[in-house]
Amino acid sequence: MDLKIELKKRADFFNKQLEKFLQGGSPETLYNAMRHLPLAGGKRLRPVLSMISCEAVNGDVVKVIPLSIACELAHNFTLVHDDIMDKSKMRRGLPSVHIKYGESTALIAGDLLFDKAFESMHKTTGDLNIFKNVEYGLIDCIREISEGQQLDMEFEKRKIVSEEEYFEMIRKKTAVFFQYAAEAGAILGGANSEQSNALSQYGLNLGLGFQVWDDYLDVSSNLETLGKDIGNDIRNGKKTLIACHCLKNAKGEDKKILDKIFGNLYANDEQVKNIYNLFRKTGSAEYAKDKAINFANNAKKALNILPDSDAKQLLASLADYSINRNK
Amino acid sequence: MDLKIELKKRADFFNKQLEKFLQGGSPETLYNAMRHLPLAGGKRLRPVLSMISCEAVNGDVVKVIPLSIACELAHNFTLVHDDIMDKSKMRRGLPSVHIKYGESTALIAGDLLFDKAFESMHKTTGDLNIFKNVEYGLIDCIREISEGQQLDMEFEKRKIVSEEEYFEMIRKKTAVFFQYAAEAGAILGGANSEQSNALSQYGLNLGLGFQVWDDYLDVSSNLETLGKDIGNDIRNGKKTLIACHCLKNAKGEDKKILDKIFGNLYANDEQVKNIYNLFRKTGSAEYAKDKAINFANNAKKALNILPDSDAKQLLASLADYSINRNK
Repeated sequence: MDLKIELKKRADFFNKQLEKFLQGGSPETLYNAMRHLPLAGGKRLRPVLSMISCEAVNGDVVKVIPLSIACELAHNFTLVHDDIMDKSKMRRGLPSVHIKYGESTALIAGDLLFDKAFESMHKTTGDLNIFKNVEYGLIDCIREISEGQQLDMEFEKRKIVSEEEYFEMIRKKTAVFFQYAAEAGAILGGANSEQSNALSQYGLNLGLGFQVWDDYLDVSSNLETLGKDIGNDIRNGKKTLIACHCLKNAKGEDKKILDKIFGNLYANDEQVKNIYNLFRKTGSAEYAKDKAINFANNAKKALNILPDSDAKQLLASLADYSINRNK
Repeated sequence: MDLKIELKKRADFFNKQLEKFLQGGSPETLYNAMRHLPLAGGKRLRPVLSMISCEAVNGDVVKVIPLSIACELAHNFTLVHDDIMDKSKMRRGLPSVHIKYGESTALIAGDLLFDKAFESMHKTTGDLNIFKNVEYGLIDCIREISEGQQLDMEFEKRKIVSEEEYFEMIRKKTAVFFQYAAEAGAILGGANSEQSNALSQYGLNLGLGFQVWDDYLDVSSNLETLGKDIGNDIRNGKKTLIACHCLKNAKGEDKKILDKIFGNLYANDEQVKNIYNLFRKTGSAEYAKDKAINFANNAKKALNILPDSDAKQLLASLADYSINRNK
């Protein structure tokens, strides 16, 4: 079983459903702006996760289509608004929505994506109590993502952020959505509570592992391929796990350099490289790597109580992939 | 029965419920930003309308509390985002959210208000089919408001907007929300379909009347008290009903003046006054006034099928008020 092929198979199926759902609408400019990002591709991790989670409890994948579309649209709504806030010019290889359509239309397009997520959710069939619970989960999830986004911004302005605070932030900003997609997919697939809890824990740990591995990747890449992002993150004082660890553990001269350059918008490339090297010297990069591996292992452990199946194996492979990928 | 006293009684009751619902939350800055506008007062027309509508079908007002809070929060979410787009500095006598908390936090606070609207909706008790239908109504309503907001922006850039297009825009941007509040309040109050349709028609016409009367008020006020808003509306080429009518009917020299000044960002105060006078000369202001009166009458007519009650009388008074107020 090849993970990439299996993921792609589901993403392709999902994309067809998504395209169908997003057809039409007037005024056209607004609807084109609304479709721009969701139809620009992407890994579709959240919807695919909800599908595999449903399969893992022997559920009918057709039942999670409305949920899977809702997850992707809600995710895209947060990206469209994030890009406005961060003034990001590109996303998925295309101009971001506010660059192409202007900030006002992008803002409304984001709101409309939020709204369409709930419109999709309402296509859920079956027991109404289950529908209501699953929909409430999405409401709760978006609340936590909003809180996480605010924390992320506030942390940039703070000198020190504890590891505990960092994990709370990425849990809210990133991991709860993986947790929700996996758990809700299982519930709509007919999971018992032991199974849905297991998949909830799987999703949470997968999400945390993905995010921490992203932090690690940025710093472990070759100096030559050092992207603009990591430079910006250092200049903005972005509190990744690696930064939090380094800020806590750097001593003496290292600490002085860190205090001077980290979060300094006017730092030059040479200074940024020094911080980058410091992240490795203090063992902060390795520390993050170990944490990510730990999360992936916890994700796999959570799967133990599930019956053996291709889907279960796929979820385990996805956890492995989360800490073996190099982009 | 005094309309203002009756409206205030319900608004006071509503405000207590709203305050309770909006308590707490972390990070504090985000939650303060989220609470800023909803707790800054306002007429509470939408929630109060849902309450009176429920009363008019002899329903229990307690059942519409979640709906009424959802309506007010969803309305506030659109205002917070509108103020970011319009760069409005003040709202309800206070600095707007993005002025007080910055654009990024205001954007997230708006998203959170949207989310909290659905959180409140989920506190609806009783039949789940009814809950699902009423919640779907809110989803549909926010979709139309987004479309209306986009139309409003697009119309500013256009030379000519037909009356039909204008009404479609204000129906979506303003009236559907009155329509929804009245209809959903009735449904949760146990209305039969004839009653809920009547209250839906009442809300729609009330909303249209309110908006057209607002357009009329801006132009009918004394030249001395001519607000900044009307000047800005003329400079921005805002397509009010009066502007649409005047653009269609002005002839000869009037038409030339209109083409030169309306939508001209650099028009001086004297030029703005000329347009303002032209709106009256062409009969466009009176035309809008008659339309508003017509909507109010239609709103009252829709009430005919309801049993007589204080609530029914209150709704009729509210329709009268919508076209008799001078602010």
